[in-house]
Amino acid sequence: MKIGLLGCGRIGQVHARSIGQIDGATVGAVADAFDEPAQALAKKTGAPAMSADELISNVDIDAVVIGTPTDTHYDLIHAACDAGKAIFCEKPVDMSATRIRECMDAVGKSGVAFMTAFNRRFDPNFANMQKRIVAGEIGSVELITILSRDPSPPPIGYIKQSGGLFRDMMIHDLDMARFLLGEEPVRIYAVGASLVDPEIGKAGDVDTAAVTLTTASGKICQISNSRRATYGYDQRIEVHGSIGMLRAENMLENTVEVATSNGFQRAPAQHFFLERYESAYRAEMAHFIASVKSPNAVTPSIQDGLCAQILADAATESLQIGKAIDLTSP
Amino acid sequence: MKIGLLGCGRIGQVHARSIGQIDGATVGAVADAFDEPAQALAKKTGAPAMSADELISNVDIDAVVIGTPTDTHYDLIHAACDAGKAIFCEKPVDMSATRIRECMDAVGKSGVAFMTAFNRRFDPNFANMQKRIVAGEIGSVELITILSRDPSPPPIGYIKQSGGLFRDMMIHDLDMARFLLGEEPVRIYAVGASLVDPEIGKAGDVDTAAVTLTTASGKICQISNSRRATYGYDQRIEVHGSIGMLRAENMLENTVEVATSNGFQRAPAQHFFLERYESAYRAEMAHFIASVKSPNAVTPSIQDGLCAQILADAATESLQIGKAIDLTSP
Amino acid sequence: MKIGLLGCGRIGQVHARSIGQIDGATVGAVADAFDEPAQALAKKTGAPAMSADELISNVDIDAVVIGTPTDTHYDLIHAACDAGKAIFCEKPVDMSATRIRECMDAVGKSGVAFMTAFNRRFDPNFANMQKRIVAGEIGSVELITILSRDPSPPPIGYIKQSGGLFRDMMIHDLDMARFLLGEEPVRIYAVGASLVDPEIGKAGDVDTAAVTLTTASGKICQISNSRRATYGYDQRIEVHGSIGMLRAENMLENTVEVATSNGFQRAPAQHFFLERYESAYRAEMAHFIASVKSPNAVTPSIQDGLCAQILADAATESLQIGKAIDLTSP
Amino acid sequence: MKIGLLGCGRIGQVHARSIGQIDGATVGAVADAFDEPAQALAKKTGAPAMSADELISNVDIDAVVIGTPTDTHYDLIHAACDAGKAIFCEKPVDMSATRIRECMDAVGKSGVAFMTAFNRRFDPNFANMQKRIVAGEIGSVELITILSRDPSPPPIGYIKQSGGLFRDMMIHDLDMARFLLGEEPVRIYAVGASLVDPEIGKAGDVDTAAVTLTTASGKICQISNSRRATYGYDQRIEVHGSIGMLRAENMLENTVEVATSNGFQRAPAQHFFLERYESAYRAEMAHFIASVKSPNAVTPSIQDGLCAQILADAATESLQIGKAIDLTSP
Repeated sequence: MKIGLLGCGRIGQVHARSIGQIDGATVGAVADAFDEPAQALAKKTGAPAMSADELISNVDIDAVVIGTPTDTHYDLIHAACDAGKAIFCEKPVDMSATRIRECMDAVGKSGVAFMTAFNRRFDPNFANMQKRIVAGEIGSVELITILSRDPSPPPIGYIKQSGGLFRDMMIHDLDMARFLLGEEPVRIYAVGASLVDPEIGKAGDVDTAAVTLTTASGKICQISNSRRATYGYDQRIEVHGSIGMLRAENMLENTVEVATSNGFQRAPAQHFFLERYESAYRAEMAHFIASVKSPNAVTPSIQDGLCAQILADAATESLQIGKAIDLTSP
Repeated sequence: MKIGLLGCGRIGQVHARSIGQIDGATVGAVADAFDEPAQALAKKTGAPAMSADELISNVDIDAVVIGTPTDTHYDLIHAACDAGKAIFCEKPVDMSATRIRECMDAVGKSGVAFMTAFNRRFDPNFANMQKRIVAGEIGSVELITILSRDPSPPPIGYIKQSGGLFRDMMIHDLDMARFLLGEEPVRIYAVGASLVDPEIGKAGDVDTAAVTLTTASGKICQISNSRRATYGYDQRIEVHGSIGMLRAENMLENTVEVATSNGFQRAPAQHFFLERYESAYRAEMAHFIASVKSPNAVTPSIQDGLCAQILADAATESLQIGKAIDLTSP
Repeated sequence: MKIGLLGCGRIGQVHARSIGQIDGATVGAVADAFDEPAQALAKKTGAPAMSADELISNVDIDAVVIGTPTDTHYDLIHAACDAGKAIFCEKPVDMSATRIRECMDAVGKSGVAFMTAFNRRFDPNFANMQKRIVAGEIGSVELITILSRDPSPPPIGYIKQSGGLFRDMMIHDLDMARFLLGEEPVRIYAVGASLVDPEIGKAGDVDTAAVTLTTASGKICQISNSRRATYGYDQRIEVHGSIGMLRAENMLENTVEVATSNGFQRAPAQHFFLERYESAYRAEMAHFIASVKSPNAVTPSIQDGLCAQILADAATESLQIGKAIDLTSP
Repeated sequence: MKIGLLGCGRIGQVHARSIGQIDGATVGAVADAFDEPAQALAKKTGAPAMSADELISNVDIDAVVIGTPTDTHYDLIHAACDAGKAIFCEKPVDMSATRIRECMDAVGKSGVAFMTAFNRRFDPNFANMQKRIVAGEIGSVELITILSRDPSPPPIGYIKQSGGLFRDMMIHDLDMARFLLGEEPVRIYAVGASLVDPEIGKAGDVDTAAVTLTTASGKICQISNSRRATYGYDQRIEVHGSIGMLRAENMLENTVEVATSNGFQRAPAQHFFLERYESAYRAEMAHFIASVKSPNAVTPSIQDGLCAQILADAATESLQIGKAIDLTSP
């Protein structure tokens, strides 16, 4: 199976590395709007660099990995659908739910396999939790707590184009909530403030936020985000069920503990997503490659991408108006 | 210092035991509406049993511990104020914020020391956290997460008279939020459902609930409660600050871990509040006795009791109307 | 049941406090070679101070707690046997195995109950481990690792009269080894050095030591001791069995963890034996009082005291000659 | 840099994978006594399969990785020395200390770089500990405890040719002891028994063993091994120093914990060495490749291989004669 990489930036390089470790898959071509990253990745993978159009229309390419800026996804998805290529697309599919619905239509009509790259579903810890929830190990899910903090905020220029914390950062947690709740949220309430960096507030965004989701049957999920954690990338989830509780702790830099008169000290959490989710990136690509032949089975689907975006939009609105928002099914 | 115990039930017995371990304090008299528990505690402590009126008017008694049913607090507080006795009063002071304000007036006029028994402030773990927050160890507080679950719900008869989960159970967490935030909440949003026991739902209450508090400066606190946790009394708090994070884990039954092919297993959490807060009960009584001579210094004060009740009332209303409630200062 | 306390020092005060918390037991009299501690404890307990002779011959006294200096144990045990009093005796029973055997004879002839106060057997963690080993939870015991470190060395004057590290400090671990192995050691090998304080070396003792015990069936136990641990009183044991492993971790000062750029830091271990073994002291006294009526059932017995002393003697000799010592059954 | 792989079994495949991830290094050729594994690894790496002689004499090959059976190491090392190739050699270099000395001479005369593959020195946890010890973080080392257990014993056929537990399994721990002690052991005492599988005992070997090492300055190291641990590959080390203690915990399969009425359960330890030491294998190969140009700087050196073998030999002898063995410097 030959895979064309659209986008040769940091995430494109991650996917290239993953593909290199999967038997039966190779990078077939690479493309980027800029020449330098395209040539660099071409050299590393041994695959030719070409334009996105050439790559998508190339008959040797079976599937495309879309890792380009978000505003280019829409056109690339439509082109790949037309060319009948399986699609692996970075989140968010698009900033507009309306446009994601249009992509959904195109995907549906073309019948190509489509996977929205919510990498955390493939983290060995969170995947293990979900499997055990489905297996009934903690009974029915009642309360979920998701704690997610980045080590430090991105540059203010990034923030301004990001769509805001809920669409850029919390969208991952909103997808995890759906993944673990096993039921769609029907109401969302969001709060937030700029406590980390006043520039973020001036840019109209928040850097500290919390959301409450509720489902029709009464399940509750609380999420909190901060753009800064001095102790590393903080990624924890716990799920309280009727007969037990599951929780996933952070992955630390190592297992060493030092004991002194100050007490017992362990290492910081792994620094950021490239370290923490290294195996998740590999597993999501392996999942895509393994399931691409049965298009309906690929998850997270484009619907999953849409649902998370709708939640992020509603959280943004809730924060603005200071009220809970009732959600209608997509 | 001689202390009169009003109420000889479970909590009165806890306080009697604490007093017995504090140098310079003794139980001077005990009273209960029922004869049997009064006689039993009299025998155990060596102090005489008498009526509440006799106890309060007894010139040998320096202070009273009110551990009677909530609806009797109001009259006992007024009587103790009239008699000039220092007062240690179990939470809630009263189910009505209006009546707590009337008690506050009586306490203020009489000048007696008054302590609202929010025992968790004296838990060695939570007290340690608060001290370190005040000392600036984690910078300014930004996000607080409070997870609180009882091992199993109380009898349905108790639920019906409890004032509801927010006033009966979460009130402790609401006080902890105020204790750790260092700033009054200005808005509250509550959700809840009856997931543990449908009888609780029929009785008009919830058994699973979550609250979000926000302060004027943008600090956020998320609280979640369940009336049932199969693994013991779950009492955890974490506070995310600008330069670090503090978290208090549960206290387990012991430190033993067994490793088998299933993995590494540690003991359940200490069963319930009598075990978990044993040292907190002792410390709160020691604090009361030590500070009773400077009435203004006694904390948690009756105002603290009022503030927590106002938050519990607002949470109850928020759940009913499905909207966030703006709070005004008491 | 009335208990006479022989010795009103630190350990006598611990036992007095424990007795005060056990229903059906009271301190009946106290005695000490010095007047001041005797009067202080008499005041605290409300029991009369008297001479050791008077106490032992007092018909109101049912049992004696021997917490005097080790060299006085021998005579007090004999006197108590003659007077038919049940005996609770601090470890070591005597510095000489020969003299312990003589005490054993006296106890045997008199038929009084005798308990050697190896408090660690009553630590909730270690007691829990032993119970689970006996219940077969980890199959047959194969390897035991005992790590035991004091927070700081005792005064050099104490060291000189202590009988050496193996008899003074490791004797507790040697008893724990016997408690958990379920089989008598047949060979012992000891190493040691003075690494903490050269004064200890000059006094002919070691402050850092390790012992290996083996049993006839091949079970192995490794013990290591240090007279100094900067992070508190370090008391850990792990037992590797055929179908699982049990380990007991330290008890920390609290459950709070702080996360900063240095990582995740928990509190130091509880400082020393009075804190760590507080509940063990209470449990051992309760066990003595509960079992005193069936003298043969009292454990740890005087034989246990003798066996531990023999192991400590052999370890001392092994270190001196640099060879393993074969043990014969006592 | 082109590397020739001698031996295409499990460990050869591990090294091939590592080399594939290191920039500037490639597998240049592969060789194996059997055709099938050689062809398989040739296909995977794209490198030609050839005989060991051809590989060693191939002018394109800069370095060889010796992962063949132990009894072939001696000849291959001599051949590689003659051909001037840098050598990465699996442990043990040879079963005979005399023959390792002869290899040392050949290496010394030829001036080629030589690395003994003690992979654990490159485990991120143990490497971190050693670095911090050298940096003085815990002061001077006093007591080391090494706990090492395999998940299950190897086939009895392997046991019979293994040289015994001390040379086959504990040799890694003996090297870790030297790595962390910072001083050569001067005395060793070993005990052991066959408790896991009587067949191992019948074959003249033990499956459960413990060793005590002491150095001239009095430092102590205790090691214990078992050939079976139901909870995974148990690899823990702790180092007690004058101003602190360092310990490395196991790496578990994931960070998920489940809480039920039985308590809190985490995952088993990673199953065995291929999982646990995956990153150590990568790091040791990267270290070899990076340091091969300065032959004297390569560690662990062939002397390290010799020293560990001498300790394993002495442990074997100590167990046989039941006595501590005095070591002389190699």
